[in-house]
Amino acid sequence: MKPIILNHTENSEFLYLQLYEAIKGDILSGAMTAGEKLPSLRGLSKELGISITTTELAYNQLLVEGYVISKPQSGYYVASINPDSDIPTGHNRKSAPANLEDYTFEESPYITDLSCFDFGKWKKCAARVFNDYSGLLLFESDPQGEPALRYEISKYIYRFRGVTASPDRIVIGAGTQQITSHLSRILLKMGISHVSLEAPGYLPVQSMFRDAGFNVSHIPVAKDGIDISKLPANISSAVYVSPSNQFPTGAVMPVGRRYKLLDWAVENDSIIIEDDYDSELRYFGKPVPAMQGLDKYNRVVYLGSFSSTLFPAVKISYMVLPEEMAEIFRGIKNRYTQTCSKSEQLTLALFMEDGYYYTGIKKLRSLYAQKLQAALQAFARYAPDMVEPVDTQSGISLTVKVHSKKKASQLCSEAKSIGLQMVPLSEVTDQSTSALIFYYNQVPLEQIDKLIGELSGLWSS
Amino acid sequence: MKPIILNHTENSEFLYLQLYEAIKGDILSGAMTAGEKLPSLRGLSKELGISITTTELAYNQLLVEGYVISKPQSGYYVASINPDSDIPTGHNRKSAPANLEDYTFEESPYITDLSCFDFGKWKKCAARVFNDYSGLLLFESDPQGEPALRYEISKYIYRFRGVTASPDRIVIGAGTQQITSHLSRILLKMGISHVSLEAPGYLPVQSMFRDAGFNVSHIPVAKDGIDISKLPANISSAVYVSPSNQFPTGAVMPVGRRYKLLDWAVENDSIIIEDDYDSELRYFGKPVPAMQGLDKYNRVVYLGSFSSTLFPAVKISYMVLPEEMAEIFRGIKNRYTQTCSKSEQLTLALFMEDGYYYTGIKKLRSLYAQKLQAALQAFARYAPDMVEPVDTQSGISLTVKVHSKKKASQLCSEAKSIGLQMVPLSEVTDQSTSALIFYYNQVPLEQIDKLIGELSGLWSS
Repeated sequence: MKPIILNHTENSEFLYLQLYEAIKGDILSGAMTAGEKLPSLRGLSKELGISITTTELAYNQLLVEGYVISKPQSGYYVASINPDSDIPTGHNRKSAPANLEDYTFEESPYITDLSCFDFGKWKKCAARVFNDYSGLLLFESDPQGEPALRYEISKYIYRFRGVTASPDRIVIGAGTQQITSHLSRILLKMGISHVSLEAPGYLPVQSMFRDAGFNVSHIPVAKDGIDISKLPANISSAVYVSPSNQFPTGAVMPVGRRYKLLDWAVENDSIIIEDDYDSELRYFGKPVPAMQGLDKYNRVVYLGSFSSTLFPAVKISYMVLPEEMAEIFRGIKNRYTQTCSKSEQLTLALFMEDGYYYTGIKKLRSLYAQKLQAALQAFARYAPDMVEPVDTQSGISLTVKVHSKKKASQLCSEAKSIGLQMVPLSEVTDQSTSALIFYYNQVPLEQIDKLIGELSGLWSS
Repeated sequence: MKPIILNHTENSEFLYLQLYEAIKGDILSGAMTAGEKLPSLRGLSKELGISITTTELAYNQLLVEGYVISKPQSGYYVASINPDSDIPTGHNRKSAPANLEDYTFEESPYITDLSCFDFGKWKKCAARVFNDYSGLLLFESDPQGEPALRYEISKYIYRFRGVTASPDRIVIGAGTQQITSHLSRILLKMGISHVSLEAPGYLPVQSMFRDAGFNVSHIPVAKDGIDISKLPANISSAVYVSPSNQFPTGAVMPVGRRYKLLDWAVENDSIIIEDDYDSELRYFGKPVPAMQGLDKYNRVVYLGSFSSTLFPAVKISYMVLPEEMAEIFRGIKNRYTQTCSKSEQLTLALFMEDGYYYTGIKKLRSLYAQKLQAALQAFARYAPDMVEPVDTQSGISLTVKVHSKKKASQLCSEAKSIGLQMVPLSEVTDQSTSALIFYYNQVPLEQIDKLIGELSGLWSS
């Protein structure tokens, strides 16, 4: 509804007609759309300086003529008229649902299996934030992230990943892009403008550093990780590695080579950026402890995230900085605002403090391991010659080579047609490959066998 | 607590001692700090593959020796020992509070008066998101912002600011920095690399555009807004204006000059970025409708925010793009992730749909107008010759000139000593001035007179 200006100089018994015409005009022009709630009788009357009776007369006229409908104890809503008529696009609202009930998800490929996520406990923690700590919400969040959450992260990563990090060296942000953009500014301030990346590697990381103005070089990855001998020498630079589960090769860097990489960093006054994504979801044996814990020379920046271990609507990532870099960040942090929701950070802090996060991870790990087994068995049963699993160590996805004349994109859209999410590996890495990434984590365990059976039929047809 | 490895080959009756030593070591080294909760007996036993009795023995030993304390029905916590001893800084957690109860706010100058914010209603909406729409939380948020919230914003700004915007032309982000960074990418893609800014103007805006790689020029502002004759001609550029309440001059651009600025944009194939901050809080007369509503040529980008109208922990801003620019954004949006919390966006959508937001704004407007009056009256009473109010039209703050030999920073710290937040204007604008900004919105109405009385005493001493 647009601002309404009533002409009070005319006979006031026509005021209701003016109001009726104004609202009708908005409905016919598409400025108000079906399902939209009209202002309350009392509110609109007060706003326009007219009596409630006058407003009610106008609403009743609209009701009688079918422009609006009335819902008991709720109010008046725009009726569905001329659903196919042309509406000026400037302010029509058809591109979004009028109510949360009208949401559709057809376009989203993400389906999440939340059988391990204890929504009830999360809600309880969220309610505690509002009920017991609402005073904290009267202040903006620390640009570095909520102290209470940094404290819990500090505890957690020390215990489970061997990472040593006092809370004042932890920086929280809404996703890897936020974190990397802070990191870029710190590196540039240190005079580091060159970043070495793993090849093949994860494409979004490459464009993030390139967009931030870094010179980027690509260093080949072998079975035991990045080729240290090919890293730049005699200049201060940074190297981005995922030593515990390299994407897309799945390479794990043994401890001896980790020390060699640390030596390289010390000798060349350089920084190692350790991306520890998915490490909590390692299924076989103990998770490999993080490199950061081996570092005695403050050379390692540790990147972590809650993306694959909480539910998808929560976007919280973090990094652990060596003290020197943390100091640089504290010097500039007030120029930035925290992007993570404060109440969500506090909820997560309580969720971790009460141990629910750890319990969830344990369940998740065991469930995903079962799913991975089920998927491997199903491929072996239904498509032993066609599908060849490549990386099967950990994480939330499985990389497979498919021996087929069909293109990778075709194979993926056939998978999507039965609800399975697959992505051509070539879309997210610089490796030239026909392999596919299969996100089995999103499929309920009991459906994996059946769906892979169907998929094998589609693929071989 | 760090990962514990027990040696099972020794006599197992000593297992509890190994565990006791491991935990004691963590407490003494500062790796576990006072107030930190120990893992549950059951959980730790399962994790280590030992009996609950063994773990209980270890915990009891720690309890007896005073390393931990036990809270009934809650568990074991690290006791407060040697509070002044040196702790290795690598992993000590003293820099953050162990519990939400331990938060302190001494360093934050922000105090918010929430007497108008209906926290109860917000909590109700948040609970509805979790209870009725938790299915929506299984999907990541749209990089452009939640459709339901874009729908509500579309309705709201049309009704109250005269802005015409279909939801697919609205982009949501966590704060102005996020929004401006998206906007910068779109402008650069359109070949626009020059931005004109108001002088004097708001400093953070200047650094945002400069950091994003734009050439920036400064155009003087008069009583009726920016000097249009000084804007670049014959090149495509952008101009950043706040026509409804310029900062720091408080200038309002009359409608005739708004049309002239639009003409300039059409003639030079240029873009107007209209920052409509605080416009909802205009106290005298009707709010001036936004420029965007006058624009028939798709030249205006409209920036809005919920920063000063919701509570400070919520950080949601948005922009309305002309269709051409919206199309560019839709082409690149999947390279970005949404930084706003999804559940907070959905909560706000419900809060707006139910009319609570509008009710709150109305209350806020009337309360802030009273506070402004009270502040002006108090300054006139206690310091008629010393304090000269400059900009008093709208917003959440008041700009005053203080005739004093003290420096602006000194005046502000005297204000802070009695809980009033003032900032030297020169810190946030490129204007050379000794004026101060006084955030009266944060002070309870009934205390304004008394506190300004005290302040006048301090300032004149």
